[in-house]
Amino acid sequence: MPEHRFSLRRRVEFADTDAAGLMHFSNFFRFMEATEHAFHRSLGLSFHDFRPGTDAAPIGWPRVHAAADYKLPLHFGDDVEVELLIEKIGATTIHYRFCFWKSPDDGGDRTLAATGRCVAACVTFGGGTTAPPGISGAPMKAIPIPDAIREKLAEAPPETIGGPS
Amino acid sequence: MPEHRFSLRRRVEFADTDAAGLMHFSNFFRFMEATEHAFHRSLGLSFHDFRPGTDAAPIGWPRVHAAADYKLPLHFGDDVEVELLIEKIGATTIHYRFCFWKSPDDGGDRTLAATGRCVAACVTFGGGTTAPPGISGAPMKAIPIPDAIREKLAEAPPETIGGPS
Amino acid sequence: MPEHRFSLRRRVEFADTDAAGLMHFSNFFRFMEATEHAFHRSLGLSFHDFRPGTDAAPIGWPRVHAAADYKLPLHFGDDVEVELLIEKIGATTIHYRFCFWKSPDDGGDRTLAATGRCVAACVTFGGGTTAPPGISGAPMKAIPIPDAIREKLAEAPPETIGGPS
Amino acid sequence: MPEHRFSLRRRVEFADTDAAGLMHFSNFFRFMEATEHAFHRSLGLSFHDFRPGTDAAPIGWPRVHAAADYKLPLHFGDDVEVELLIEKIGATTIHYRFCFWKSPDDGGDRTLAATGRCVAACVTFGGGTTAPPGISGAPMKAIPIPDAIREKLAEAPPETIGGPS
Repeated sequence: MPEHRFSLRRRVEFADTDAAGLMHFSNFFRFMEATEHAFHRSLGLSFHDFRPGTDAAPIGWPRVHAAADYKLPLHFGDDVEVELLIEKIGATTIHYRFCFWKSPDDGGDRTLAATGRCVAACVTFGGGTTAPPGISGAPMKAIPIPDAIREKLAEAPPETIGGPS
Repeated sequence: MPEHRFSLRRRVEFADTDAAGLMHFSNFFRFMEATEHAFHRSLGLSFHDFRPGTDAAPIGWPRVHAAADYKLPLHFGDDVEVELLIEKIGATTIHYRFCFWKSPDDGGDRTLAATGRCVAACVTFGGGTTAPPGISGAPMKAIPIPDAIREKLAEAPPETIGGPS
Repeated sequence: MPEHRFSLRRRVEFADTDAAGLMHFSNFFRFMEATEHAFHRSLGLSFHDFRPGTDAAPIGWPRVHAAADYKLPLHFGDDVEVELLIEKIGATTIHYRFCFWKSPDDGGDRTLAATGRCVAACVTFGGGTTAPPGISGAPMKAIPIPDAIREKLAEAPPETIGGPS
Repeated sequence: MPEHRFSLRRRVEFADTDAAGLMHFSNFFRFMEATEHAFHRSLGLSFHDFRPGTDAAPIGWPRVHAAADYKLPLHFGDDVEVELLIEKIGATTIHYRFCFWKSPDDGGDRTLAATGRCVAACVTFGGGTTAPPGISGAPMKAIPIPDAIREKLAEAPPETIGGPS
């Protein structure tokens, strides 16, 4: 069954915080990406080698857009559920929406701490160099999302998608 | 003279990169914040103590929104100029726009690698606790931007502001 | 029962890696700290308020020493078990040892990817300021490890502690 | 002239700090690496392509050991000078020592905030794959430090090297 939703729980770590005592705003983006990768893993779509039997160049998902709206601060030790929804599947891109739910330790109601968006583009790396891309600047090339990936993904029902972020 | 523009040059460090060989997308937000702080510093607005003669609670600038559009990848060692423009000064918030210009080592034309936005809200911390905020969750409270800060800032001419991000 | 050992499993995330394709060496230290905090949490020693009934200043554990020896690289997606052992409990410090075990996905033998050490000192923050420490520079003061903490911890048997790092 | 010493000034950024209001201990290692890379750059040893005229596999410097001793905390905005000394040049490794000098804004005496060590091993990447190393796990292979690099480096006089860290 194609999937359009996933969620990941994790705690805010000390290294995620800043001197204002809050999770640093840039780390919400790391949480989004970790949720996306856990989603892919849950579907058996590992980062590499997901087209078995081929020796095609590996696929990556660089971001072309990322955004977040911060509503409530997160603190060290906070238990957070990051909810992912697929907003749209394009020819070469996937649009994700994220909600950051803060779950109180006493079992009370969770509250929405932040929302976010990422648009990831499907690319191949390589092109005939043996150098690591960080060194060679091995070019990326956008490609259509392979069918083996596309068939595992679905767009979320529009009513489950929140407002702007 | 009130200022509406600032720019900061820095190199992409190895720790800024990821296994795809690119600057990790979350680190563009760190570069934006570093540019904002350098801008404040250039105006004599240090993060604390910028209302001399008072013992008012210190002021912080947590983000309420952040976004980036990625156009070209940045690699380890790339020389980047991060340009900041003030898009809007509200009652309690400042809206910043950012351009990431990649400057080739050979002195050729710079290219636009990314654009970004941050909306920062003016807050005070504290409220009668001696605990660090990361431990106590010392509450933040939004306040109007103090005049001593506001009078040093100006909105950029609309024609200098780029499109959506 | 006092405890001297703990372990935490986690995957290497994309943001943990660098352009050489490896987990960046600085992130091993973040993994060590996350393991230490999870250990404290497992003992009911939350980061704050662990001396109930008092309004004592909160306690922190800044590092006075940290070290790592890297034996095998870790890559994006690797499943890692970080094992913590208490090497020594001093008057004001705890000496931790860490082993990073890489667990192959195929269930094969785990291999030792790195070892590490951290020495954390027990301190109180505060001292009569309402400012966040990042702003005020609120002084830390080393204190003897409180009995409520000490009685939950034990030193690991010497034979379980590895060589230098 | 072969060099054995270099120093880099930089400010502690907000994203470098944690909820205790201090520069997070892991970020001292990022500062060390940034200093090492700036040192290489100052010698004309860029990370790639430093053996012009050859198409040899690119060279990297993964760490085999890293350590730090923390003496005084660093805070957001602190002006820090990171001093690098080459302690030893081995067949395949370079041993660096670092001092973190905190320079007060009022021009007073600088104080030693931390010391550190890193041992970096010279390796080549690659081995006939076009995949990025983060994806392919392209193997690293330790190699003797090339003469073109070695001849630009010198060991620091022993009396300039501090104690243990």
